[in-house]
Amino acid sequence: MTSIKKLKIGIVGGTGYTGVELLRLLALHPHAELVAITSRGEAGLPVADMFPSLRGYVDLSFVDPASADLGICDVVFFATPNGIAMQQTRALLDNGVRVIDLAADFRIRDVGVWEKWYGMQHACPDLIGEAVYGLPEFNRAQIRNARLIANPGCYPTAVQLGFMPLLQAGVVDPASLIADAKSGVSGAGRKAEVHTFFAEAADNFKAYGVGGHRHLPEISQGLSNIAGMPVGLTFVPHLTPLIRGIHATLYARLKTPCDLQRLFEETYRNEHFVDILPANSHPETRSVRASNHCRIAVHQPQGGDTVVVLSVIDNLVKGAAGQSVQNMNIMFGLPERTGLEVVPLLP
Amino acid sequence: MTSIKKLKIGIVGGTGYTGVELLRLLALHPHAELVAITSRGEAGLPVADMFPSLRGYVDLSFVDPASADLGICDVVFFATPNGIAMQQTRALLDNGVRVIDLAADFRIRDVGVWEKWYGMQHACPDLIGEAVYGLPEFNRAQIRNARLIANPGCYPTAVQLGFMPLLQAGVVDPASLIADAKSGVSGAGRKAEVHTFFAEAADNFKAYGVGGHRHLPEISQGLSNIAGMPVGLTFVPHLTPLIRGIHATLYARLKTPCDLQRLFEETYRNEHFVDILPANSHPETRSVRASNHCRIAVHQPQGGDTVVVLSVIDNLVKGAAGQSVQNMNIMFGLPERTGLEVVPLLP
Amino acid sequence: MTSIKKLKIGIVGGTGYTGVELLRLLALHPHAELVAITSRGEAGLPVADMFPSLRGYVDLSFVDPASADLGICDVVFFATPNGIAMQQTRALLDNGVRVIDLAADFRIRDVGVWEKWYGMQHACPDLIGEAVYGLPEFNRAQIRNARLIANPGCYPTAVQLGFMPLLQAGVVDPASLIADAKSGVSGAGRKAEVHTFFAEAADNFKAYGVGGHRHLPEISQGLSNIAGMPVGLTFVPHLTPLIRGIHATLYARLKTPCDLQRLFEETYRNEHFVDILPANSHPETRSVRASNHCRIAVHQPQGGDTVVVLSVIDNLVKGAAGQSVQNMNIMFGLPERTGLEVVPLLP
Amino acid sequence: MTSIKKLKIGIVGGTGYTGVELLRLLALHPHAELVAITSRGEAGLPVADMFPSLRGYVDLSFVDPASADLGICDVVFFATPNGIAMQQTRALLDNGVRVIDLAADFRIRDVGVWEKWYGMQHACPDLIGEAVYGLPEFNRAQIRNARLIANPGCYPTAVQLGFMPLLQAGVVDPASLIADAKSGVSGAGRKAEVHTFFAEAADNFKAYGVGGHRHLPEISQGLSNIAGMPVGLTFVPHLTPLIRGIHATLYARLKTPCDLQRLFEETYRNEHFVDILPANSHPETRSVRASNHCRIAVHQPQGGDTVVVLSVIDNLVKGAAGQSVQNMNIMFGLPERTGLEVVPLLP
Repeated sequence: MTSIKKLKIGIVGGTGYTGVELLRLLALHPHAELVAITSRGEAGLPVADMFPSLRGYVDLSFVDPASADLGICDVVFFATPNGIAMQQTRALLDNGVRVIDLAADFRIRDVGVWEKWYGMQHACPDLIGEAVYGLPEFNRAQIRNARLIANPGCYPTAVQLGFMPLLQAGVVDPASLIADAKSGVSGAGRKAEVHTFFAEAADNFKAYGVGGHRHLPEISQGLSNIAGMPVGLTFVPHLTPLIRGIHATLYARLKTPCDLQRLFEETYRNEHFVDILPANSHPETRSVRASNHCRIAVHQPQGGDTVVVLSVIDNLVKGAAGQSVQNMNIMFGLPERTGLEVVPLLP
Repeated sequence: MTSIKKLKIGIVGGTGYTGVELLRLLALHPHAELVAITSRGEAGLPVADMFPSLRGYVDLSFVDPASADLGICDVVFFATPNGIAMQQTRALLDNGVRVIDLAADFRIRDVGVWEKWYGMQHACPDLIGEAVYGLPEFNRAQIRNARLIANPGCYPTAVQLGFMPLLQAGVVDPASLIADAKSGVSGAGRKAEVHTFFAEAADNFKAYGVGGHRHLPEISQGLSNIAGMPVGLTFVPHLTPLIRGIHATLYARLKTPCDLQRLFEETYRNEHFVDILPANSHPETRSVRASNHCRIAVHQPQGGDTVVVLSVIDNLVKGAAGQSVQNMNIMFGLPERTGLEVVPLLP
Repeated sequence: MTSIKKLKIGIVGGTGYTGVELLRLLALHPHAELVAITSRGEAGLPVADMFPSLRGYVDLSFVDPASADLGICDVVFFATPNGIAMQQTRALLDNGVRVIDLAADFRIRDVGVWEKWYGMQHACPDLIGEAVYGLPEFNRAQIRNARLIANPGCYPTAVQLGFMPLLQAGVVDPASLIADAKSGVSGAGRKAEVHTFFAEAADNFKAYGVGGHRHLPEISQGLSNIAGMPVGLTFVPHLTPLIRGIHATLYARLKTPCDLQRLFEETYRNEHFVDILPANSHPETRSVRASNHCRIAVHQPQGGDTVVVLSVIDNLVKGAAGQSVQNMNIMFGLPERTGLEVVPLLP
Repeated sequence: MTSIKKLKIGIVGGTGYTGVELLRLLALHPHAELVAITSRGEAGLPVADMFPSLRGYVDLSFVDPASADLGICDVVFFATPNGIAMQQTRALLDNGVRVIDLAADFRIRDVGVWEKWYGMQHACPDLIGEAVYGLPEFNRAQIRNARLIANPGCYPTAVQLGFMPLLQAGVVDPASLIADAKSGVSGAGRKAEVHTFFAEAADNFKAYGVGGHRHLPEISQGLSNIAGMPVGLTFVPHLTPLIRGIHATLYARLKTPCDLQRLFEETYRNEHFVDILPANSHPETRSVRASNHCRIAVHQPQGGDTVVVLSVIDNLVKGAAGQSVQNMNIMFGLPERTGLEVVPLLP
């Protein structure tokens, strides 16, 4: 394997869960060479001291963003809170560095909507138009040529992949979609919030953000793009005592009789990372734990006019770091699965 | 407390989770005197040897059903698998013993429907008509005079209490109700099934029974009774890594503008065990852990025409043992809360 | 119950886990009248808004410590971080108010040791001598007349109750005691620390503080008092993915042949809250969940000279709030079990 | 990768957790070709139908043991209950097939001891002498030439690797070793036992088998071999609410002053899969989740004469399937890490 061309990779903000997950995947990626991982608060600390799971695989220390020479990178991943990537992206692009933002800075086309939901002014609204929404199963061609990728959110990935066959085929009423989604606690990130403490979140289940969640406009925009028309969506996220995993239970009203199983299988026939289960299946979140797969089952209970789609992903992989590596592979002409051949961990 | 009249109580099938939960509640019930707990497999074993949590509170040993003199009881609870209560109920009623069945033998009015879903022939179809469905918030008057109570299932309790205000007021379309329900693993009972092993159910989430679940006809029947007309229901249960708790997320289409918060508060104004949370709340399952309460919040996301109701119970208390004690209190003229004043365990 | 004399009770610092647990127990205590709960950060907030489990049971709002009139109380509980109680205790005692400190301010006799381990100067070293260490099974007579109780820590309670029979009988070598203790995450309190996040603590197990833990001097002091001579102790605490519960596995070298089962049973024959299990038992943490019991089993593997004691408590009850209520009952001449008759929650 | 020589591999008993874990690892092993997986109960069922995590990675179906042609294999793994491998091993060896038994059939040298602890007669006691105990860090040379490997148990692996430096150096008293070990629930296997149900094992902690556990003679034998003399061991296993992971907390009495950190580092300097953490560390079970590593820290609390060793493994990897693949690699002259380069999953 001596002659493999390596991509020089930088990671901004490597101390959160998407950061350590990127490191897990990139550490064994045959074409990846990690050159810098930044952290304002932990500069100087060996990455593997914070995450002992990386001992023997990642030898880098965190560097201060100010002293990191990201300009030598082929690609920089932002695994940062919202609002950071937009401040540094232009300079990187100007240096010929491609950017993949795992946060939400470039996901919403309408900057007014973005500013309302994220509560800040956008630093580079002109780049929003250039950014490509990195959902390969919908957008692969554009990703291939992108300089700037808006990596989709975790809920949006699970929900869009589940609704896509129905909306593309036009067989359901787009005005009354329901997404009842359940997420593991790692989706909240590695930061101090009371409701994510073990003694709060374990043996407990609750909905949150029913009145409005930041992923709602992202999902609505994505579904509208897929449907080619505006959609009406009710989105209810729930916090579940899982470390990892999203389970989206999707409801739509069928307008046109349709062989749903076949529709789903054909839509994703050539997609390695979307797996349509046999009829009458119920995908489990653990069946994709640690892997970049989305597994989907479709049901039509009692033969009625309500379609139920069950869609599961690992929120840190297909819902974040894995999908960003998939996007990187596409952008640099690598086989899409490179570095992503991980058998899910069960049990 | 010397002169309190005690009810003589028998429990058939005390080795499951609803059985031990009944014992937890009845052990401190000031009007309850446990006289017999039967178990075919564990006869002779002190109950507290199987459930050390009861040491010091329950001194009885399991007795063989054949030798148990249940005829001396005022009331007998069946905490058995489906199909047992129907075989013994007539003899008990004939002896003047009242019966509360925590299983499903008397929940479905249409014996044909029951036999289809439960896969057996009903032993006493004529008693189905006499049985009272023990949901006090809907049925209190009838419970008061009942000899035979069909104690509601756990999912049906959470779902019916959540939909009841909407259906009674006639403000939603009854034809397209959706109940997306999540249950803790104790709901599956204390029996050997691979999917309830810790190493299978922990850190995992999945739907099950989307094609059809036994609680579907019970809920449909109950909602139709409440609505006064047939309803259309899609019911999707999920297995959640909780020990206890049900969270029902309910969706309905609003037909008539309505002050939903006020509707819910007024419906349950006099119900001690149903607690309507303030607007914009999200009830947690742990907020009712160990208690007989149902907590409910109602939302109308983005002011649209979809109503979202969040309803939580402890599946072993309001969803089983607690509700059966509530029914017993009503049947015997005791204050409804007797023995049920338990502050939920948090954290 | 109209004529029951009520104790006026104040709680300083009611927003942590020991605070809400005190409220759970006191809400149903027939002789307790809550008059004030203080919180600097949450003044004005109804307690039940923070802890919805208390809705219907606690109507108070948090008050600012500066405006709370604790001088009218019969007893004040400090459920605060270390270092708070010592600043307010003298004024309360001078007002005739008794004080029970659930933190560590008065647990260590040697103020120099205390200041070393807790990293601050003690505000009232002269009161340390007056404080009574509130372990009723060892110290009941002194508690009865105490004005100031140092409520024991959670680990110290489980470890001392487990070693007490052996040390009082003098049958083991006091120089080489080992306490391998495992705690649920609620023991770390309700404050932001990365290692107590769900995504960090779930499905994970680790030791911590092997080089030295604050409970070490407290346990050593307690065991030395019990033994009547200095002891040598190795104490290794572990963080376990439990919400509640401590399991102490204790090792000692037997010097004198002894009927261990009988020794333990006789030591605790009259103790309601210490339950010695039959020979060959293994107590589970859940067998005391929510209750004030300590359950203990004693083993002598392969008949060798190593004694193994297994001791379990609920860290928030017998390890904190429950024991403090037990102390209050003793101090005010109430039956010791008052308000503490809770059947453990299983499952 | 076209010209890599593939080993033909059979797995007997692929429906348990060690079976699916073997499949996870072998599916991506560049020199492994799965040719047969047997199961008496599931013959005909595609493996990936039972374990959807393997969809896309394992295409085989289970075959009945009677019809499996294991004689064509280079190596057969037994991932079976105890007592199966010993019945089929001789025929396989006679056919030139090497055998790795993940169960206990060949772990104990003294057949009388084995028969006492495992409660059955041994089918081929003469092969016990030939079997090599597959702990590579102790036994690598013998493994290289072995036809039959007794793959170590999970507890024995964690405990032996933790004590090995101390016993080889002769710096501790071998007569009074204590191993306080905590295991995840997957260690109990994928079979129906009440105590492994989610609702029993979650939020619960307990010791078990204090009077005697099957791993005790295996560990004692192993430690005696390492020490070159008989050892005295107290072994207390605990069931912990983890899916995977073993944490062994080991106690020994220091006889000779010693630089413990250096001793441990030097003992394992050349061992890829044993990682000695820096002084004052506390390894977490999740830091080895999904990987074949053992991570160890050594402490000498308060500079006293008690050594505390903390040793963690993933019970299904280094404690079972991973170590068996490591043994296979050694037996067939492959680089020892082949197929075992997995970055642990965190969180």
